[in-house]
Amino acid sequence: MREELRPVSWTGKAIRLIDQTALPGEMTYLEISDIDSLVEAIQRLSVRGAPALGAVGALGVAVAMQQREREGWDVEAFSSALDRLRNARPTARNLAWGVDAVAGMVELGEAAVIGEALKLIAEDEANNHEIGRLGADWILSRVRNRPVNVLTHCNTGALATTGWGTALGIVRELHRRGALGVVYVDETRPLLQGARLTAFELGREGIPHFVQADAAAASTILSGKADVAIIGADRIAANGDTANKIGSLAVALAAREGQIPFVVAAPESTVDVATPSGDFIPIEYRSEAEVLSWAGVPVAPEGSRGYNPAFDVTPGRLVSALVTEERVLEVATGEVPAPAQEVTAP
Amino acid sequence: MREELRPVSWTGKAIRLIDQTALPGEMTYLEISDIDSLVEAIQRLSVRGAPALGAVGALGVAVAMQQREREGWDVEAFSSALDRLRNARPTARNLAWGVDAVAGMVELGEAAVIGEALKLIAEDEANNHEIGRLGADWILSRVRNRPVNVLTHCNTGALATTGWGTALGIVRELHRRGALGVVYVDETRPLLQGARLTAFELGREGIPHFVQADAAAASTILSGKADVAIIGADRIAANGDTANKIGSLAVALAAREGQIPFVVAAPESTVDVATPSGDFIPIEYRSEAEVLSWAGVPVAPEGSRGYNPAFDVTPGRLVSALVTEERVLEVATGEVPAPAQEVTAP
Repeated sequence: MREELRPVSWTGKAIRLIDQTALPGEMTYLEISDIDSLVEAIQRLSVRGAPALGAVGALGVAVAMQQREREGWDVEAFSSALDRLRNARPTARNLAWGVDAVAGMVELGEAAVIGEALKLIAEDEANNHEIGRLGADWILSRVRNRPVNVLTHCNTGALATTGWGTALGIVRELHRRGALGVVYVDETRPLLQGARLTAFELGREGIPHFVQADAAAASTILSGKADVAIIGADRIAANGDTANKIGSLAVALAAREGQIPFVVAAPESTVDVATPSGDFIPIEYRSEAEVLSWAGVPVAPEGSRGYNPAFDVTPGRLVSALVTEERVLEVATGEVPAPAQEVTAP
Repeated sequence: MREELRPVSWTGKAIRLIDQTALPGEMTYLEISDIDSLVEAIQRLSVRGAPALGAVGALGVAVAMQQREREGWDVEAFSSALDRLRNARPTARNLAWGVDAVAGMVELGEAAVIGEALKLIAEDEANNHEIGRLGADWILSRVRNRPVNVLTHCNTGALATTGWGTALGIVRELHRRGALGVVYVDETRPLLQGARLTAFELGREGIPHFVQADAAAASTILSGKADVAIIGADRIAANGDTANKIGSLAVALAAREGQIPFVVAAPESTVDVATPSGDFIPIEYRSEAEVLSWAGVPVAPEGSRGYNPAFDVTPGRLVSALVTEERVLEVATGEVPAPAQEVTAP
């Protein structure tokens, strides 16, 4: 077995990232030691995926502390740097979560912050393995077909986390148990995280897979080729509504129509109990250029506009199972992550 | 107003095609005077769209007659050429329909065949305008929001027909009546007929539009941005099941969930009463390369396989209205194109 991919690590002086924009063509690394470069790397998706963003959020606090020292920042400059980091991508729950998880230790010094961040990273990988076990157990208890054929969207593997994966962690666990058939990988336009990253990870593991256009997902499901759809999440509201990569909602609608389970896999840190429902989740809109061209080649005529929401929200009623490291909630039957609270409109 | 696009015409000695693979970058033409070149042009999608394929099917019989004369073909060679043409793309109903519509006139001579083919082409454009009128009437009677915002998939405009368009003909008619808002154009992976061709046609007409990833369609609909979804068809079964470009099914599922009408627009020639249901429609699978690379740039790692069905089948129960030049059938409420017949399994 190959060494696990490590998209986020700490050199002692910098965050080391696999530059995921260059995959699968090249494996290149970025070493980042200032907040502006980190925010930029996050925004251009050199690092992405909810748990991986949690890791860079936590390590980013250490980067900010080193930069404060180097550049003599005052309290306000430091606080502004953490805010820029926390808000680099609006939909992602884990980025702010990672910052906040270590921010309270800043007064204990850099070593304490780094130690805590590395502990979170180690816990994340352990949580991923637990998600894989719980998810595989649930799927094997619900799906009769053997081997189990899976459809997935975007990338939720080692590259999206700090090792192993969430939704793809379940796929890997099914494979480890000899219960996996083939994986249908939605290419995941516009930035093709499925074709570029998920196919790359599955290829490394020797897992049979087909890359398909996102638009093929519904017929793949309704023609009986997939037994279960498994996706990750960028933010999960208290009622189980799930924000994930654009296209997840269409997969959920097809899964319900085809009567196959729609499984959401994410660590507890992605569950945002302060967000009562999907209506309150901010959606990130990205550059029009992402849909108007590819690899520098324009695909639409000059003058055309692009519409490019990066995420959609799948209502909890379409989520057959939400799998975290602690629990499996059958959201569609009313098992919600957190009790309803009194809320005001967004 | 600009001159209408003419994707298919007859020079007297050859079929003249706009090479749609080069759009929107370049407007180049192909002149085709032999069957093998015609089949190749059809298969690489230099010409595509159900009504346009009907036109090349009919004109292709004249090409075969000229080639028979030139090369001294016997009866078998001629018959084999027409079969190759008829079967160049398996899902498309209109290609075989076009061949068969003029094949009976072969013994009357080339002039008769060409005359009949040109008559079919003129009728097709008139039919398109009638589809536009009937479709716009139906939509304006059902949709309250003004102006009407539309979502469409693939290309169904002048380029897909012999002028004007089917689904896009309805859009153009709504625009002509001052009732159109904005059009959300699914890019339509893998070959991007939406981004390349539909956006090009809308731009020519000055119609406001956004190109979006196919995966965005569900959230565009469920967030209330589109008031109606309008698509074309490659083959419609007797019960109203509709084969159309891969991804149409996902649009239909989202339209039902979002309670907006899902409209299929096609000439009567696309209705295949001999095909009882979608289960009997052959689906074309195209090259893996179409999903594994784009514009010569690989998007998936070496060793990954691609799965590339070109069409899916939307069940008639999801079709709010089927609009032809003769009628508007509310298929979802039981108005089917043709009565059920005794059939044997496919």
